[in-house]
Amino acid sequence: MTNKSNISMSVIRRLPRYYRYLRDLEKSGIVRVSSKELSVRMGFTASQIRQDFNCFGGFGQQGYGYSVSNLRERIGEILGVANLKKCVLIGAGNLGRALLSIDFSQMGFDLVGIFDTNTDIIGKEVRGYKVYGTEIIAEFCAREKPEMAIICTPTDSAEEICDTLFENGVNAFWNFSHYDISMKHPEAMVETVHLNDSIMTLSYLLDETQ
Amino acid sequence: MTNKSNISMSVIRRLPRYYRYLRDLEKSGIVRVSSKELSVRMGFTASQIRQDFNCFGGFGQQGYGYSVSNLRERIGEILGVANLKKCVLIGAGNLGRALLSIDFSQMGFDLVGIFDTNTDIIGKEVRGYKVYGTEIIAEFCAREKPEMAIICTPTDSAEEICDTLFENGVNAFWNFSHYDISMKHPEAMVETVHLNDSIMTLSYLLDETQ
Repeated sequence: MTNKSNISMSVIRRLPRYYRYLRDLEKSGIVRVSSKELSVRMGFTASQIRQDFNCFGGFGQQGYGYSVSNLRERIGEILGVANLKKCVLIGAGNLGRALLSIDFSQMGFDLVGIFDTNTDIIGKEVRGYKVYGTEIIAEFCAREKPEMAIICTPTDSAEEICDTLFENGVNAFWNFSHYDISMKHPEAMVETVHLNDSIMTLSYLLDETQ
Repeated sequence: MTNKSNISMSVIRRLPRYYRYLRDLEKSGIVRVSSKELSVRMGFTASQIRQDFNCFGGFGQQGYGYSVSNLRERIGEILGVANLKKCVLIGAGNLGRALLSIDFSQMGFDLVGIFDTNTDIIGKEVRGYKVYGTEIIAEFCAREKPEMAIICTPTDSAEEICDTLFENGVNAFWNFSHYDISMKHPEAMVETVHLNDSIMTLSYLLDETQ
């Protein structure tokens, strides 16, 4: 097993990107790649790439390049993508439904339940998944033991939902709401996607050039 | 006018978050806030907040706190949210449609057109916006002069689309595809949202604790 401790978050955040590029290379039938070639494709320096791979014990031999499939597999292992962890989706509105087009099983997760407050869709199926009412979240989590929750609720209802999830063993959150989960639950693992912040940054950059 | 040059991207990326918090405070009827109170709410240090605001000439008087509405307005001005810039959405699939629930006019943008290759929806309306075929993008951009494009196409078709947009004056991209726009167009302003990378980071973090 690779020792995962003491690896900086900035290295970790680059791993999915390596994984993605290597999968593309594999699909194109490329079997070996050098850190220099990866560097050209990815915009990182070759030395950065070698350093990143060394954090995990290195994956190749200097001068020979890396085996694409071996490297992709090892990084996938480190990311834990083959070890499916149960997750739930809270909020089956527009964004929640859009996220259902993700192939969770390729990302390390098994989606086991979708929850919403909208009585029009509770009990129905969305993309093959049955929608449950949010009132049974505690009971469901006690039984199914999901480890991660995708939060696509309005910000106002996120706090209560996250409290319930956290109390029932959910320790990781993929957060699309503006509710700041880490403030109340600093122990939780949280990845927040702030779509509005991202588009406003573009507004700033465009304005600046005018 | 505030001088915007020489402000680091890390400060800029915090501005939408300040803006969001201040809007929430304003809605709750709070009229004054100190950097210390903001610090507790936002998880930044008070000194960090004062430093950030000083980049833009400061907004308050030491010891008196900040006027919430004044601060919110000034940050909004810096972000350029009142100066609506035309944008287009390319790709009206699940994710593209989900993004239509964003109130673009609050984010500094005016959505002027949606484009797709799917003949089933071309000519129809999605959430009040007419969908055009991608073959008229060049002509449309020459006429309407959008400055920003939201890329929700499959990665395979993103390169050609981005080339066409860039050649026709679109200089900013909100990129949800895995195509790396900056590699080919380093001058373009690009904000990429890598949903898959974000969820894979959670997979890593969860695996690490097992």
